[in-house]
Amino acid sequence: MGVQIMCPSLIQEKSQQANTILEELDVDAWMIWVRETKQMADPVLSLVLEGDLVWQSALIYTKRGDRIAIVGNLDASGVEPLNVFDEVIPYTESIRDVLRNTLDRLKPQQIGLNFSRDDVSSDGLSYGMYNLLNEYLEGTTYPERFVSAEPIITRLRGRKTSEELKRITKAVEITEKIYKEASQFVDVNQTELDIYHFFHQRMKEHGVSFAWGVAHNPAVDAGPNKQFGHAGPTKNKTKAGHLLHFDFGIRYQDYCSDLQRMFFFGSPSDIPEEVQHAFETVRDAIQKAAEFVKPGVKGYEVDEITRTFVQQRGYEEYKHALGHQVGQEAHDGGTLLGPLWDRYGSSPKGIVEEGNVFTLELYVTTKNFGQVSLEEDIVVTKNGCRFLSTPQEELVCISK
Amino acid sequence: MGVQIMCPSLIQEKSQQANTILEELDVDAWMIWVRETKQMADPVLSLVLEGDLVWQSALIYTKRGDRIAIVGNLDASGVEPLNVFDEVIPYTESIRDVLRNTLDRLKPQQIGLNFSRDDVSSDGLSYGMYNLLNEYLEGTTYPERFVSAEPIITRLRGRKTSEELKRITKAVEITEKIYKEASQFVDVNQTELDIYHFFHQRMKEHGVSFAWGVAHNPAVDAGPNKQFGHAGPTKNKTKAGHLLHFDFGIRYQDYCSDLQRMFFFGSPSDIPEEVQHAFETVRDAIQKAAEFVKPGVKGYEVDEITRTFVQQRGYEEYKHALGHQVGQEAHDGGTLLGPLWDRYGSSPKGIVEEGNVFTLELYVTTKNFGQVSLEEDIVVTKNGCRFLSTPQEELVCISK
Repeated sequence: MGVQIMCPSLIQEKSQQANTILEELDVDAWMIWVRETKQMADPVLSLVLEGDLVWQSALIYTKRGDRIAIVGNLDASGVEPLNVFDEVIPYTESIRDVLRNTLDRLKPQQIGLNFSRDDVSSDGLSYGMYNLLNEYLEGTTYPERFVSAEPIITRLRGRKTSEELKRITKAVEITEKIYKEASQFVDVNQTELDIYHFFHQRMKEHGVSFAWGVAHNPAVDAGPNKQFGHAGPTKNKTKAGHLLHFDFGIRYQDYCSDLQRMFFFGSPSDIPEEVQHAFETVRDAIQKAAEFVKPGVKGYEVDEITRTFVQQRGYEEYKHALGHQVGQEAHDGGTLLGPLWDRYGSSPKGIVEEGNVFTLELYVTTKNFGQVSLEEDIVVTKNGCRFLSTPQEELVCISK
Repeated sequence: MGVQIMCPSLIQEKSQQANTILEELDVDAWMIWVRETKQMADPVLSLVLEGDLVWQSALIYTKRGDRIAIVGNLDASGVEPLNVFDEVIPYTESIRDVLRNTLDRLKPQQIGLNFSRDDVSSDGLSYGMYNLLNEYLEGTTYPERFVSAEPIITRLRGRKTSEELKRITKAVEITEKIYKEASQFVDVNQTELDIYHFFHQRMKEHGVSFAWGVAHNPAVDAGPNKQFGHAGPTKNKTKAGHLLHFDFGIRYQDYCSDLQRMFFFGSPSDIPEEVQHAFETVRDAIQKAAEFVKPGVKGYEVDEITRTFVQQRGYEEYKHALGHQVGQEAHDGGTLLGPLWDRYGSSPKGIVEEGNVFTLELYVTTKNFGQVSLEEDIVVTKNGCRFLSTPQEELVCISK
């Protein structure tokens, strides 16, 4: 008898993970409660479902391993073939009774719902739908059992499955290919906008879309006077002896890349000492972070390594976090490799887990040549981490 | 001295409308309260803003005509050039104090927030953000002044401006062009899937996207045994003497069309009497509805006209609403031209307004040839309505 090996689809992988995470967190049930998801989609939905739901729908996962979809009868035919739910329960007139019956059968003591103060990825439940759920469950004790699903969702988003890693790896690969192509195109006396349009043309040929808004993607910053991250590409021109900075990320099959690179106009021997010193500082800081990262460390501990290092090397500390997670969004939420600043809330206190994909990114400011900034993408492995990108080792020198 | 005439942009038109609607409804203020809108966008946002907001943001409109945006300092540079807000107030650390100060200055007695039990277009506020707003306003009486913005948003979406009408008209025009092209392509012995793919190829060449999910767009239903609206296109083949039904809508510059058409395989003299009778019933029902529609009538009154008519002509009543609004969504919410059935909630009781764009659509069932269904798009004018589509007058006969 032959054994048929079926590769689970991405949403099958993620759905199984959901049950595992519930068991681990000892939360009885998690409910995604949505409607007309084409018009406003809960951000978690695309991890566990393909297609849209029109009528009010409850997708219920339990720590015992149940996966139950209660959906409108016209939606059921789209949900069944996904092979994700053990039960697809269609309804015609009202979801109320079948929802109550299902909860009565499952008897969950906690019901995770998608609301969160700080994490937008975990805050997909609308206030109107929250009220409607309370109305449907009036007279029961279920509303008292609602808890925030943030701990479930941040883990689910953060722990990349093999299929997710495959897609991110491919996104990174295409991004690096376009950077390579750009190194052949870029020259002195071009505007930032010329170069920006070249990237878009290459993206079109590679058939990929933007990891974030087109206005700043890629960021192209020529010369010493451009503050990174503030203005989009301008008519600023590239000049011999100047630096050129990029921040660029694409989306491939729903998954993102996010990489910064630095070019220099001149031959390697033309690189001013202060530029080389800054470049090596940033490059080596990223290596130090990568050497430190492993499952179990806290986000802010990783950031501390690089923040201390750049100050020891004589620079001001960078004004952002060292690294954010990358997935279906370029900024994918969850644990942040950042300092314990108010503005980051509790995210830097999160724990790094195997399968997390992070950026490692920072800048230092030179006296005469502006900022020097790099960004790499890593995946956390069992005992450390592995680069998904090929870290930039030297300034890309443009001298034609 | 010359006078410079500037055409207001779509979001400028809609923003001005927002103030007018607040005045009309006598609601002091409306607040769109959002964050990271790229990841989860309030459905109303694309009517009044271009681009994304990253940090927590409050867009406040008053009945006195104020339009104030409180946004993160990095978001401000994207909002200012839109020329929509009189004040763009950037903040760096926390929105809390500037939000409280702004409300103290405006002194609104009611504050519309985007939550709704029944209308997904008016339910863009997440439960986490709702809680956060209450936290920021703790100790004030503002939370007691929150009201649902549903009456504001349904009017804002429903009253199409000249720019919106221009785009919908163009979407309808392209849809009709593709139907025309299809009438030359379609033949007997093709599968529904062959024809479906032809539409997609034409859409690509016209550079337009889908008004709703690709799985049912276009719906292609060949022969007597296909129930409309349930299954996507299949390997069902077209046959001489059979009917062919389409439901097809595209999106052009963010605005949708939605049109159904009927083809017949044979020459006009081959059309069976029961098919012709059914076709004329549907066609004439739509005309009767169009003659009745005008500002001030109620949604269900329009539906009653056609529902009664098809029954008088000897058919069962259709199992859906006669018409829904069309805009940035194919099903754009608000007043529905539908029966007073529970499942439609209060939407059929809504009042038809000038500038509303509706579909007029219905089907009847023949004994031997399946369903006959048509759908046209209209805009409500000062005294009646005007067809945006060219109503189908006769079955499109395919006999090559």
